[in-house]
Amino acid sequence: MIKYNKQSDKPLQPHPPISQKERFNPTPIAKSLETLVGKRIGLFFAELSKIPTLHLIDVLLLLSKETLYQVLQRISVRKVYEAMSLIPSDDATDFMQQVENIDKEYAKKLQTLMNAHERHEFFELSQYNEHQAGAYMEVEMLTATLDDTIEDVKNAIRLFRKDEPLSYIIKLFVTDRQRHLLATLHFSDLILFDASDTIRQVMQKLQPHHPLSILQTAPIEEVIRLFNEYDLSVLAVVDNDGLLKGRILFDDVYELIQDTHTDQVYKMAGVDDEAEEQSFYSAQRMRLLWLFVNLATILIASFVIESFKETIASYITLAVLLPLVAAIGGNAGMQAMTVTIRRISLGEINLSQARPVLKRESAIVLINGLSIALTVALITYLWFDDAMLSLVIGLAMFINLFVAGSIGALIPLLLKRIGIDPAIASSILLTTTSDIFGFFIFLFLASLILL
Amino acid sequence: MIKYNKQSDKPLQPHPPISQKERFNPTPIAKSLETLVGKRIGLFFAELSKIPTLHLIDVLLLLSKETLYQVLQRISVRKVYEAMSLIPSDDATDFMQQVENIDKEYAKKLQTLMNAHERHEFFELSQYNEHQAGAYMEVEMLTATLDDTIEDVKNAIRLFRKDEPLSYIIKLFVTDRQRHLLATLHFSDLILFDASDTIRQVMQKLQPHHPLSILQTAPIEEVIRLFNEYDLSVLAVVDNDGLLKGRILFDDVYELIQDTHTDQVYKMAGVDDEAEEQSFYSAQRMRLLWLFVNLATILIASFVIESFKETIASYITLAVLLPLVAAIGGNAGMQAMTVTIRRISLGEINLSQARPVLKRESAIVLINGLSIALTVALITYLWFDDAMLSLVIGLAMFINLFVAGSIGALIPLLLKRIGIDPAIASSILLTTTSDIFGFFIFLFLASLILL
Repeated sequence: MIKYNKQSDKPLQPHPPISQKERFNPTPIAKSLETLVGKRIGLFFAELSKIPTLHLIDVLLLLSKETLYQVLQRISVRKVYEAMSLIPSDDATDFMQQVENIDKEYAKKLQTLMNAHERHEFFELSQYNEHQAGAYMEVEMLTATLDDTIEDVKNAIRLFRKDEPLSYIIKLFVTDRQRHLLATLHFSDLILFDASDTIRQVMQKLQPHHPLSILQTAPIEEVIRLFNEYDLSVLAVVDNDGLLKGRILFDDVYELIQDTHTDQVYKMAGVDDEAEEQSFYSAQRMRLLWLFVNLATILIASFVIESFKETIASYITLAVLLPLVAAIGGNAGMQAMTVTIRRISLGEINLSQARPVLKRESAIVLINGLSIALTVALITYLWFDDAMLSLVIGLAMFINLFVAGSIGALIPLLLKRIGIDPAIASSILLTTTSDIFGFFIFLFLASLILL
Repeated sequence: MIKYNKQSDKPLQPHPPISQKERFNPTPIAKSLETLVGKRIGLFFAELSKIPTLHLIDVLLLLSKETLYQVLQRISVRKVYEAMSLIPSDDATDFMQQVENIDKEYAKKLQTLMNAHERHEFFELSQYNEHQAGAYMEVEMLTATLDDTIEDVKNAIRLFRKDEPLSYIIKLFVTDRQRHLLATLHFSDLILFDASDTIRQVMQKLQPHHPLSILQTAPIEEVIRLFNEYDLSVLAVVDNDGLLKGRILFDDVYELIQDTHTDQVYKMAGVDDEAEEQSFYSAQRMRLLWLFVNLATILIASFVIESFKETIASYITLAVLLPLVAAIGGNAGMQAMTVTIRRISLGEINLSQARPVLKRESAIVLINGLSIALTVALITYLWFDDAMLSLVIGLAMFINLFVAGSIGALIPLLLKRIGIDPAIASSILLTTTSDIFGFFIFLFLASLILL
């Protein structure tokens, strides 16, 4: 029996209009609304009223919280509800969650307009957190069982096109009567069969390979990996019993990859992706937290310097060269760390390949440490005409670069093994090491050799 | 007239096997080869010989240069050529370019085996650099003109499946006789028509919107933007005369997005993406270059400290607190910079929206600068029991955090406007400012207030 989740009682056209999804680009309109809001209120609402209901939610999903709040105050709940009922379930859920964050009252009113089916769908889909595959699936999809004919499939397409004007069909999901996934078939294959052929006959001819699927609760990294490694356009989402629940499409993957990267680069700089989007104060607070963590580590470095106060007092040039050691060590460590974090996240390396990675990174900082140390030693000698000081800074720079570079590669690998996201903790651990160790080795060598 | 670029003289099956692309995952095999190479040579070649010819190039494309070199020494040119002729043109070109980089002789031998058509295709496709759309297109695609019937299309599918077992069909490209693109149609729409219907009739019924396309020489950022904003699965590539040349598919976009992000995060840390992949020494040299650039800026900071040598000599605690000012300023600046670079690259902001971005970032560092400055002032007071020193460090920290944070947001926006990639130059400009200015403001205030 052909089915998908919505029911229609309108008469079916033999050739319904094609999907409207690709026709419309919501981005420029959303951008224009963002520039107009709060400044040119007349133009803002003129622009807003021009958006066709079919594409309204697509635009609203791109707005900032502040702008979306302004919009909700001026559009009737009924119009928003109508627009919501036209879009795929994942987008509708996403939108409902955004509205709940911004205006709880408005969200409640929207929910009272929903029918039982829609409400059930919303609660089903909103149970996943944003790191789970289920949060990105849409339940609208074309399915067929083995006894269905190609003619049945065609009718299902007509129904789907009418009820889901903004969904892609992409592939037919073949299941058994219990809705266990058996195959995914592309229509460029199905078109070669006769209207009276059953899906069973199609399957016998084409011998499709067992379809890939992913658990609703699987992490999004796994989603990205499967799409990447198997070059997928669509992936079936199943529950613990192997029953088909929904599908994830290529366009969600574009976003998933981008969001994952934003998250990574933000974490490395001590910025929280979600806090940035939430509000000014949540962004500010999360950034301040990070600055305080950094302050704590750099204060330890200051204690190290303080314990060598006498050394510095009797050899004041040390203070001039002090920042050099830590800064360049930090830079070399950051290079090794960035490459390692990136390669871990692309799945290129894991701890079993830690040895060649560490060997390569250490070899690079060995050569670069030597080059920089010799250069700095020479500059110091020319600048201060002091061979022993030149020896001390050269040695300290070489040791610190080598240590920071090696540790820069080691930290992400270790964090990954103990289950901590390398992007979030690596850079603070690296700075701590390169600063504290850098100051210590420089001042220690100075007190040993110069005094 | 239905056509695509290859010609077949083998008889056509009514229901040819479906695309083999999704069936195979080359990644685990490539990883296993990487771990075996140079260590367990017997297992290495056993693993290698197990790969079906159809998927050989997919695996080879994932290998490092060193491993690929080892492989090429042991596989006959004829076998590699056979495997190449089975895969889409963009992958074949990509592979040929890799072979040329590794073993010029081998590449020449491969070229002598190519027929005139293949050689032409290779030279066509290899003229694009890796930042251009043309470098990611495959020329294999299903096209039809208005007078073709659905039956013609079905025959074209049969031909395509046989000749291009590793290509997806996805959509039918409708062109005029000169090969100007008229529409792209999905097979879930085409299946609703009769075998005798012409594409002209289909077009009249479906009224497809004018298809998007991209110029061969367009930058890949534009490719990513179009796929993202219009939720595309496939995009037509055209030349200056608007003639259809090839298509870019969703799986290329996954890779493009990932590569773009790797490039960005690497540049921010002073690592060169291409150099890293090329060889150990090119990676090492590019990283050293970056360290030298950093050394130059930090040396200027040392000169600043040196010019306040007397101040430090008469107030040695200044040396203890010196690293604090620059480090936390650098951190705050890095937060603002990362967010701004990321938002520019996601197309969220440009210089016309510079004002709200700068306002937001400045407001954040105003609050955070105050919080950190008060904390550090308090700690200094408790630590050294020196109210004036506490005033100096507090003031210096506040000013430097505010300046570094504001500049961290400003620099990427300015670089973008003058056409420089913000990722590559921002961080060095930021450190220069936060270090040099940080030391200066701290020591200058100290000489003013404390002496």
